[in-house]
Amino acid sequence: MSNLITFYDIPSTAPGNAWSPNTCKTRYSLNFKGIPYKTEWVEYPDIEAVCRKLGIVTAYKKEDGTPLYTLPAIYDPSTGTALADSILIAEYLDEKYPETPKLFPPGTRSLQQAALQAFASTLDPLWQFVLPATNGILNPRSEEYFRRTRESQYGKKLEDIPPVGKKKDEECAKVKAAFETVDGWLQKGKGPGESYFMGSTVCFTDLVIASYILWVRKIFGEASPEWQEVTAWSDGRWAKFMKGLEKYEKVV
Amino acid sequence: MSNLITFYDIPSTAPGNAWSPNTCKTRYSLNFKGIPYKTEWVEYPDIEAVCRKLGIVTAYKKEDGTPLYTLPAIYDPSTGTALADSILIAEYLDEKYPETPKLFPPGTRSLQQAALQAFASTLDPLWQFVLPATNGILNPRSEEYFRRTRESQYGKKLEDIPPVGKKKDEECAKVKAAFETVDGWLQKGKGPGESYFMGSTVCFTDLVIASYILWVRKIFGEASPEWQEVTAWSDGRWAKFMKGLEKYEKVV
Repeated sequence: MSNLITFYDIPSTAPGNAWSPNTCKTRYSLNFKGIPYKTEWVEYPDIEAVCRKLGIVTAYKKEDGTPLYTLPAIYDPSTGTALADSILIAEYLDEKYPETPKLFPPGTRSLQQAALQAFASTLDPLWQFVLPATNGILNPRSEEYFRRTRESQYGKKLEDIPPVGKKKDEECAKVKAAFETVDGWLQKGKGPGESYFMGSTVCFTDLVIASYILWVRKIFGEASPEWQEVTAWSDGRWAKFMKGLEKYEKVV
Repeated sequence: MSNLITFYDIPSTAPGNAWSPNTCKTRYSLNFKGIPYKTEWVEYPDIEAVCRKLGIVTAYKKEDGTPLYTLPAIYDPSTGTALADSILIAEYLDEKYPETPKLFPPGTRSLQQAALQAFASTLDPLWQFVLPATNGILNPRSEEYFRRTRESQYGKKLEDIPPVGKKKDEECAKVKAAFETVDGWLQKGKGPGESYFMGSTVCFTDLVIASYILWVRKIFGEASPEWQEVTAWSDGRWAKFMKGLEKYEKVV
């Protein structure tokens, strides 16, 4: 078992621990491909030290221009490779484990890159609702770090980020519209029972979308009005979509 | 030859006549698939009557809520089908002419839909530069229609739409950045000599991007500073891209 990949994730108090949409992309990727791995849980203030120790290079920067280290990251002892960023990890896994199902089937890498950008833009209205709720499920050391960095970024207290009253309804409608847009993409060119981007085949773009929906479920909870609303959108599209990918959610 | 598809396009005074990015998507589609067709040139004020006569249904609406008829449109006498909208036409051609090269190779329809939305959003800064220049190459009847409808839409004279001075430089930089974003998508997961979205295979998304670049070349001209600038971006990516698709530009 010494050759097992280590997957670095951020812990929480939510049932099942895992919650982060970014690290979920890598957990989904590893589970989808069936590559064995173990999880190492890293609180926010420790991410930089862990990544530096692994020798990870990051392209992201903090507001002050110094390197910003993020999770997910993996360390693969079979090749001595350590890297961060879910999309780079997905490319690495496709290349180094060619016998496993492809996250980027041949000819789809550039199309998926553009699709992911379209999804990220579409999703903008979601953040104001999920960031403050996310803070509520973090352990104390991560909570302090998350609050400090996000409040600096938004220039206001976390509690003041979610819109209220009429503005809340307007912004909620935008989140719903965003998921209706994605539903519209998914409806194109499909036969019966084909509910993923490429039909019945799952690809990385599906797993990215599932990661954000999973985030909503994790931070609000399955019994919450928020989750009930999401699962009712687009004739239950997202409840069925998540059900189909449930087997790749497993936290090990 | 009575079974020849009729392709409806908008004429101009530009060399080769064709100029519209939207109709170009269909010309590229027909030429790429090698489906024989003839072109019928329709001035802007005549588009509605032609489409109504063909029995075309449109989902677009004018500002006053009445149906908005647009080109491209095709009439295919072999099936008695008339339809408008380049993406619907592309789907139709893939379905009815299955022996021709696919615009949407299997499994890519939803990914291309998302990629096209990403491209459309990215391209926003271009319009302010090309709309006024487009007006300069239209025939008088179309020019009057184009000016009236676009000036109503923008709330200002066509000549006052392009930014000037420092604002012009800023907006030009945004157009360049937009094409650098698309270049970034195209760079992903490619082997040597693979310069299209799916590698060496051309798909509808490539033809859409080429249609907008062709528009810039048509309205400013090949000798213009604007065209020289575009072809220098991203290490000459777009000059090579257009050269590779030149064989599908043919106006018949």
